[in-house]
Amino acid sequence: MIQTCDAPVKPKELFSMIVVMERGATPEQIQHMVERVEGLGLKSHVINGTERTVIAAIGEKREQTKESLESGAGVAEVMPILAPYKVASREVKPEPTEVVAGSLRIGAGTIGVISGPCSVEDEEQLISTARAVKAAGATGLRGGAFKPRTSPYSFQGLKEEGLKLLAAAREETGLAVVTEVMSTDDVDLVAKYADVLQVGARNMQNYRLLEAVGQIDRAVLLKRGASATIDELLLAAEYILNEGNPNVILCERGIRTFESHTRFTLPLATVPYLHHKTHLPVVVDPSHGTGHTYLVPDMAAAAVAAGADGLIVEVHPEPEAALSDGYQSMTFDQHDKMMDRCAKIAAAIDMQLAAR
Amino acid sequence: MIQTCDAPVKPKELFSMIVVMERGATPEQIQHMVERVEGLGLKSHVINGTERTVIAAIGEKREQTKESLESGAGVAEVMPILAPYKVASREVKPEPTEVVAGSLRIGAGTIGVISGPCSVEDEEQLISTARAVKAAGATGLRGGAFKPRTSPYSFQGLKEEGLKLLAAAREETGLAVVTEVMSTDDVDLVAKYADVLQVGARNMQNYRLLEAVGQIDRAVLLKRGASATIDELLLAAEYILNEGNPNVILCERGIRTFESHTRFTLPLATVPYLHHKTHLPVVVDPSHGTGHTYLVPDMAAAAVAAGADGLIVEVHPEPEAALSDGYQSMTFDQHDKMMDRCAKIAAAIDMQLAAR
Amino acid sequence: MIQTCDAPVKPKELFSMIVVMERGATPEQIQHMVERVEGLGLKSHVINGTERTVIAAIGEKREQTKESLESGAGVAEVMPILAPYKVASREVKPEPTEVVAGSLRIGAGTIGVISGPCSVEDEEQLISTARAVKAAGATGLRGGAFKPRTSPYSFQGLKEEGLKLLAAAREETGLAVVTEVMSTDDVDLVAKYADVLQVGARNMQNYRLLEAVGQIDRAVLLKRGASATIDELLLAAEYILNEGNPNVILCERGIRTFESHTRFTLPLATVPYLHHKTHLPVVVDPSHGTGHTYLVPDMAAAAVAAGADGLIVEVHPEPEAALSDGYQSMTFDQHDKMMDRCAKIAAAIDMQLAAR
Amino acid sequence: MIQTCDAPVKPKELFSMIVVMERGATPEQIQHMVERVEGLGLKSHVINGTERTVIAAIGEKREQTKESLESGAGVAEVMPILAPYKVASREVKPEPTEVVAGSLRIGAGTIGVISGPCSVEDEEQLISTARAVKAAGATGLRGGAFKPRTSPYSFQGLKEEGLKLLAAAREETGLAVVTEVMSTDDVDLVAKYADVLQVGARNMQNYRLLEAVGQIDRAVLLKRGASATIDELLLAAEYILNEGNPNVILCERGIRTFESHTRFTLPLATVPYLHHKTHLPVVVDPSHGTGHTYLVPDMAAAAVAAGADGLIVEVHPEPEAALSDGYQSMTFDQHDKMMDRCAKIAAAIDMQLAAR
Repeated sequence: MIQTCDAPVKPKELFSMIVVMERGATPEQIQHMVERVEGLGLKSHVINGTERTVIAAIGEKREQTKESLESGAGVAEVMPILAPYKVASREVKPEPTEVVAGSLRIGAGTIGVISGPCSVEDEEQLISTARAVKAAGATGLRGGAFKPRTSPYSFQGLKEEGLKLLAAAREETGLAVVTEVMSTDDVDLVAKYADVLQVGARNMQNYRLLEAVGQIDRAVLLKRGASATIDELLLAAEYILNEGNPNVILCERGIRTFESHTRFTLPLATVPYLHHKTHLPVVVDPSHGTGHTYLVPDMAAAAVAAGADGLIVEVHPEPEAALSDGYQSMTFDQHDKMMDRCAKIAAAIDMQLAAR
Repeated sequence: MIQTCDAPVKPKELFSMIVVMERGATPEQIQHMVERVEGLGLKSHVINGTERTVIAAIGEKREQTKESLESGAGVAEVMPILAPYKVASREVKPEPTEVVAGSLRIGAGTIGVISGPCSVEDEEQLISTARAVKAAGATGLRGGAFKPRTSPYSFQGLKEEGLKLLAAAREETGLAVVTEVMSTDDVDLVAKYADVLQVGARNMQNYRLLEAVGQIDRAVLLKRGASATIDELLLAAEYILNEGNPNVILCERGIRTFESHTRFTLPLATVPYLHHKTHLPVVVDPSHGTGHTYLVPDMAAAAVAAGADGLIVEVHPEPEAALSDGYQSMTFDQHDKMMDRCAKIAAAIDMQLAAR
Repeated sequence: MIQTCDAPVKPKELFSMIVVMERGATPEQIQHMVERVEGLGLKSHVINGTERTVIAAIGEKREQTKESLESGAGVAEVMPILAPYKVASREVKPEPTEVVAGSLRIGAGTIGVISGPCSVEDEEQLISTARAVKAAGATGLRGGAFKPRTSPYSFQGLKEEGLKLLAAAREETGLAVVTEVMSTDDVDLVAKYADVLQVGARNMQNYRLLEAVGQIDRAVLLKRGASATIDELLLAAEYILNEGNPNVILCERGIRTFESHTRFTLPLATVPYLHHKTHLPVVVDPSHGTGHTYLVPDMAAAAVAAGADGLIVEVHPEPEAALSDGYQSMTFDQHDKMMDRCAKIAAAIDMQLAAR
Repeated sequence: MIQTCDAPVKPKELFSMIVVMERGATPEQIQHMVERVEGLGLKSHVINGTERTVIAAIGEKREQTKESLESGAGVAEVMPILAPYKVASREVKPEPTEVVAGSLRIGAGTIGVISGPCSVEDEEQLISTARAVKAAGATGLRGGAFKPRTSPYSFQGLKEEGLKLLAAAREETGLAVVTEVMSTDDVDLVAKYADVLQVGARNMQNYRLLEAVGQIDRAVLLKRGASATIDELLLAAEYILNEGNPNVILCERGIRTFESHTRFTLPLATVPYLHHKTHLPVVVDPSHGTGHTYLVPDMAAAAVAAGADGLIVEVHPEPEAALSDGYQSMTFDQHDKMMDRCAKIAAAIDMQLAAR
């Protein structure tokens, strides 16, 4: 027999929070929490056990409810039931989002591949790379013009000159340009040249930057921060979506853990998990995710097998001479082989790899 | 106004679990889960929102309930409300437990200090150390006779010969002997010589060993595993308590994180958190927790200030010549200074440091 | 006397350690460290910069060298150059090891698949599962008779009765039996029934158990501890190899990180990394590695694409009714589909999936 | 030509990197690496073992050397010997830096305490808090006007209105104002009102912001990112110092680990470790570091005992009603007691707590 409660729950109401009182919480404390729940504009619903009372706080409001309630006297725990993000949620939009930006299509059964150097260094380096990755089947060209570097003494990028080279490479090869923007000051400038603006892992919670890229007419590739939870990643996406830009591509690029044999730990279960939670497409960056060239092709293949909507990888004509990330960049030949292997795996699971 | 539900909740009943159904879960799925909850001997209590249904599963049973329920079709999440441990819980026994083992008292306002070498090496090394730490105010003597070593090529300990030396040092100084037991095979042997049996971090979830030390008449120092949650630590303690041995001392010795400048990361908030959750005393090991001698005294002082019931530290007559852990062992002089500083801090917060 | 560069370095000598002295280290401190290096049976080789001196300690000895040297006065850092493991190293044995145990072959281009329930519950459950996974192409049958459980109140396994059921299932299907051993006390008993003895993640550093399984004539599946580094995993394998048992299979089953949306984080880059470092075969456990049935097939596919030598997965006739791990167990049908997908991926990269 | 040991090492030269070649690296590969080392403007120094060769790369240059070398063919590993930061290093400036900003002194034996609400909400809230914390001995007033919030739906701060209230509170109480700046756009505005600009954990690697606060005449409180290593923290400080602003205060506020019972894990060993590596002062934030009010006083006490140069804590007249972080804010009374306890501990170790 199902026990019901005759609480008058109206259409569109959602359960928001479960407030668990401590054993021994007083009736006054319970009453106080009920008032606070209702003061937040939520309905309260009290379940009295003999030793412990639980209050369900019901409503659509999800922002700050948890924080507001858990400081209450006599409260043992507050457990959110709804995910904190809305617009990014697959509950809200069940069908997957496809992002199209120039030649790049990501998210509808075709796996996009974005390849190129870590940093744009000069015309020869960039054009030769663009031609090589295009020939191998890539549909996007990556390359940093503004480089976030851990050390102030490292190469910081060619800036607008780099953007111009990227645009020239697009002219030459047709590849969509994906490049990072580090600051609100540069959003318009980068948007002038790029097809997709990348928000890097270190800026995933730079909220001003998220808002700024939410207001432009360009797709955004949002990289997961090295210690960001999935909820935090989706809330960062929500900042962009909330400003009106629906073309957000999520990117798993590795998290920081105790493991030190790889540069980061690349948790591929993120791919199917995100597909379950959000309609946004998910690409994987095995170059940063492993930090060693010799691990990249295996992890690219694994990402495709796990259902990734795209890959973003580092390629350089001569990795040894690269001004940044040479240790994790593939040669043209290594990239060709990786593309062959990924194409075969994609075919085996009825997906299509980029322009092959 | 408090909404109530007229569910007939009987004395001693506890809320166990909240089962959150997915949006769109069918009435059949909900009914099915209600039957499974009741099949586990729990009461069910259904709260119907329009878009989502929650089932509270009420009862005393806490083992396996979460696992049993979360595989159900249509279930979004199962949230436990009760802590999974019982006997170790402060809800069950509010007053703090004091463990007394020979000269060592831990857990009633007197801070016990257990000092000594990582490994017992020879009589001279051990006796000189025992005398020095006793003079400085330590009330327990540590020293490994059976050593768990990451590499099979490292020094594995003097075994029974080491235990005999420890007993001789107790004879000489009166200090209680604290030493590690690594295997069920050795429990009786170690118990013959030691006052406190240590279960090391690597064996925190060696359940056979936990059961074995639960059946003897000796206090147990249980070290937290390097990646154990607090619930797992308390459940490991529960294995021991459950066999009838109430004299369990918990030990925070550092966790494994992405930080590499220290050997482990020593999270001292564990101390007040554990005091909140359990009646068992908590000691801190700043030697393993930092892995560098020069960081030990500061972290020992911090542990005392945070309310630790005891310290366990490594001391060696000549750390450079130690067969193990020399890089984190203090000299006698460093130990003296650490004890002075900790005694002053203890006094400042109205605690008493060991035998000073 | 400080040896300088023309030290006669003999065949078979290896660089072991680099000892970096602090700026301002005195000549006496440097001389002292040279003597300690030589006291360890190593050759010293001093490089004098004006502001900093480095001593290379050269020799075959790798055990304890780092620990012994880093406590020296004036030493800033000691950096090991050789990996601490020997027998497991690919430098020592370049060709990959194939482990054959009954019907199970792992490590020579054929991907072994070990499927079965978390716990052996009864004959009907086990036999029906064994038949189903055999039909799908599995070559090994997993099933726990001795269960390590976080809580003392959880189901602890059928013990010898479970082993007998496993042997009966092998009789019926021909599948090799893979089952866990938790204690040295049980090694002989488990070896009597099983083809492969599993050492669980929680016992990865239970050195007595490692030694015990190193002395028997059965293959061993060694699971990585949830916070074990790769060096620690290989040193644990070394304990087994060192006792004379060459048939060790390594298993990546997920590590503990800040991520909480999956039970553990499954770092598949471990697969190619281990292939680079060791000749031992590597299997992946996507059931424990993710903790959610719906993520298992994608991660199994990813593991195959990454080059894994095998899979170990949980399957149950009725996951909802499982006594353990139901939330991460596949139904027969889910397992069939997973096997189909993995077989296609294996074929795409010129590997062969088990008995298909 | 391979240079051997008698390379003439000149004054001021430093060892930068140790390049470890693989076993079996060819003479051509070794020669190639020697040329690359020299191409970087470094001296090479080759040590030939029979089975392995090591190249020491010597010079002052530290930026990018590691990255540039580790992609070389035949290279097994590149190990940096120098820390990557310079100006922040204690090797460069041995005496500790004291930062003075208005009433706040941090870093010369006096422990500064910065107390106040998470967010500035209104005049009454702020002024009452400022008076209360001043009376308890705080020397700085914290309060957020620009709030970085994980969710776009959370309260984002009063912005310039909040800054004005902070300045008014300083007028009233004399307390130095410490407040966060989130964007380069706001640096001048915030600097107009604040004594110390805070760069939050989420912006620790927002390099444009670091450069901007490096160019103003205000002290900067730089919070450690939740997954930043100590080297990354010091390199972020280096971005500020490098622009000419010497008044940088480092802040440990907790790191992200697998622990979930606290909001973050607060690793206090950072305090003595940083004192060893840098001359910059170190403050601790036990409010964010634990996320629970009841843990804050114990961890504040522990931070003082560990040698922290300051504390930054959250205080609110009515934590339950706070618009943010109420669950980790102290009441005035709790703050008073914390200050008493910290003052006693400071006295016990011959330090002075703020204005007491």
